[in-house]
Amino acid sequence: MTGSLHERVAAGDVRACARLLRWIDDEAPGALDELKALYPHTRGAYVLGITGNPGSGKSTLTNALIRELLKAHAKVGVLAVDPSSPYTGGAILGDRIRMQEHAANPNVFIRSLATRGNLGGLSRATYDSIFVLDAYGCDVILIETVGVGQDEIEIVNCADTSLVVLVPGLGDEVQAIKAGILEIADVFVVNKADREGAEKVVQNLRALQELVRGSAARVPEIVLTSATRGDGIAKLVAAVEAHRAWLAESGEGLRRRRHFLEQTVLRHVHQRLLAEVEERLARDGHFAGAVDGLLARTADPFTLSDEVLAHVKAG
Amino acid sequence: MTGSLHERVAAGDVRACARLLRWIDDEAPGALDELKALYPHTRGAYVLGITGNPGSGKSTLTNALIRELLKAHAKVGVLAVDPSSPYTGGAILGDRIRMQEHAANPNVFIRSLATRGNLGGLSRATYDSIFVLDAYGCDVILIETVGVGQDEIEIVNCADTSLVVLVPGLGDEVQAIKAGILEIADVFVVNKADREGAEKVVQNLRALQELVRGSAARVPEIVLTSATRGDGIAKLVAAVEAHRAWLAESGEGLRRRRHFLEQTVLRHVHQRLLAEVEERLARDGHFAGAVDGLLARTADPFTLSDEVLAHVKAG
Repeated sequence: MTGSLHERVAAGDVRACARLLRWIDDEAPGALDELKALYPHTRGAYVLGITGNPGSGKSTLTNALIRELLKAHAKVGVLAVDPSSPYTGGAILGDRIRMQEHAANPNVFIRSLATRGNLGGLSRATYDSIFVLDAYGCDVILIETVGVGQDEIEIVNCADTSLVVLVPGLGDEVQAIKAGILEIADVFVVNKADREGAEKVVQNLRALQELVRGSAARVPEIVLTSATRGDGIAKLVAAVEAHRAWLAESGEGLRRRRHFLEQTVLRHVHQRLLAEVEERLARDGHFAGAVDGLLARTADPFTLSDEVLAHVKAG
Repeated sequence: MTGSLHERVAAGDVRACARLLRWIDDEAPGALDELKALYPHTRGAYVLGITGNPGSGKSTLTNALIRELLKAHAKVGVLAVDPSSPYTGGAILGDRIRMQEHAANPNVFIRSLATRGNLGGLSRATYDSIFVLDAYGCDVILIETVGVGQDEIEIVNCADTSLVVLVPGLGDEVQAIKAGILEIADVFVVNKADREGAEKVVQNLRALQELVRGSAARVPEIVLTSATRGDGIAKLVAAVEAHRAWLAESGEGLRRRRHFLEQTVLRHVHQRLLAEVEERLARDGHFAGAVDGLLARTADPFTLSDEVLAHVKAG
C-alpha cells in the first residue's frame, strides 16, 4: 500500500498502524505531523479502562473481554501499559503471552506501552496511541494499566468507562480498596469469583458504596467473573454497555470526551515545555554548578527554580 | 515560641512544623518563601522509601521500623503518601491508625500527604516536606507510598534507600514482581514471612536477580520479617545501615542526593509553568471554544498545543 503514514493508518493498514505507534513511543520527529493529519480520521472509538492490583487477573480478563467484544464489534484495540523500569526504560517481564490467542486475528490490535519514568502516570504516548487506534478503525479500545498508583487515577482522563478489578484472598480487603479506586470505578469486577471470599469482597464494596453514596452520580455495578473459565464475561460486557448508554443519556459521556481532549493538549504543552527547560539547562551548563551550590547550602532549590523559570520565559 | 515560621521549625517547634507542612500541602502563598529561608537549616536527613502492594503490611512495618530506628536515632519523621481521590482530593480510608502507638511520642513526626491527581506520582509537596522534616531535626525520614504505579518508580528520586515489601500468598508471585520494582529495590523485605510461601518468594526473587545481574551495582539484600510480631526488624535496620554505608563509600549516595535536588528544582519549575498555562487558558476563554473545534474535528489537539505553547512563551 502506498501513501503517507496517516493515510495508510486511516485505510486500516496494520503495518502502518504499528509503525506510527512505534514512532509515538520513540518520540520520533515526524510523529506529531502524522497525528495532526490523522486526527480528522478519528471516529470516537469507545475507550474502556481496566485497572486493578497485580495478580488480579487483568490480562486474562482483557483476553476474555476481547473475545466477547468481537461478537458485537468489528475491531478491538488493546493498549497494555506496563510500569516502566526507571533505568532501562523497558519491562523485563511481560505477561502478554496470555493474549497470544488473539495475536493472529486481524481484527485485534494489541500494543504494549511503557510508562515513562519521569513525570506523570500515563505517558503522552498512551493518549496519542488512542487516536491512532481510533483512526485505524478500532470500535473499542481497551487500556490495561497496572497497580493502584497514578496510572489508575489517570485512567479516568482517557477512558469512557473504567473497570476496577478486585480479587478475593488478598487479606484485608477493606484496606486494599483505596479511596481513589472507589471513585474511579464505573463498573467493579470481582474476578476469580470461584475462590473463597468473593462474596465478602462484594459485601465490603457495597458497604463502602453506602459510605460514599451521594457524591456519585451513578452507583457502579458489581460483576463477578472468573476470567480463566469465561464465567460472567457476557454479564460484564452488558454492564459496560449499560454504562455506555448512561453516558450518552446523561451528557456525562460528552463531558468525559471534552476532558480527554483537554488533557491531551495539556499533556503535550507540558511535556514540550519541560523538554525545553531540560534542554536549556543542559546547554547552559548553568545547572551542574547550581546543584553544587545546593549541596553546599549556599543556594536553595526554590530560588533556583525562580531563576530557571525566568530564564525559560526570557529565551 | 516567637519568631518566623522557618525559625521555629529549625528550632524544633512541632506546631510550626505541622503548620508549614500544611501550608505546603495547601500551596499557601507564603510557603515558598519559608522554604527558601528554611533550606540552609537542613542537615541531610537520611530518607528511607518504603513501597509495596496494598496488603503487604507496609504501615505495620513502618510502625515497627520507627520503634527500631528510635534506638539509634533521636528523631524520626514519616510521610505517608496515600493515593489521592481524583474528585474530592482527599483519602476516605486511612490505615494510619496503626501508627497510633507513636502518636504521643515527641520524637516521632507523622504526616499523611495526598498525591495530587493530575500530573506526576509523588507531588511537589512530598519533595518539599522532606526539607521541612529535615530542618525540623529528623535524622531519618520514612516515606511510605502505596501501590506499584508511578509513586513507586518516583520514590527513587527522593530516597537514599528504597525498601520494596513483598508478601507470600498473592498468587502468581513472579507476575506480581514487576520489572520496575526489581530495579527500584535497595533492600527487599519479604513481610508476613510466617505465612506459607515466604521461601518461594525468596527463591523467585533470587532467580530474577540472577536474570538481571550485571546491570546492578549491588545486589539487594533480601530480609524476611513479620512486622506484626516484630520479627526480623533489627535485621532489616542492619540491612538498611549496610546499604547506607555502601552509598557513602561508593559515591552513589552523593549522586542520589544531587539527583534529588535537581528533581526538586525541575518539579517546581514544571508545576509553576503548568499553573501558568492553565491560568492563561482559563483567562482567555480561548480554550473552551477550542475544545468545541476538537470535538467537531475542525481542529486537532496537536496543532492546538503548538498554539498554546507559543501563547505562553509570548506572554
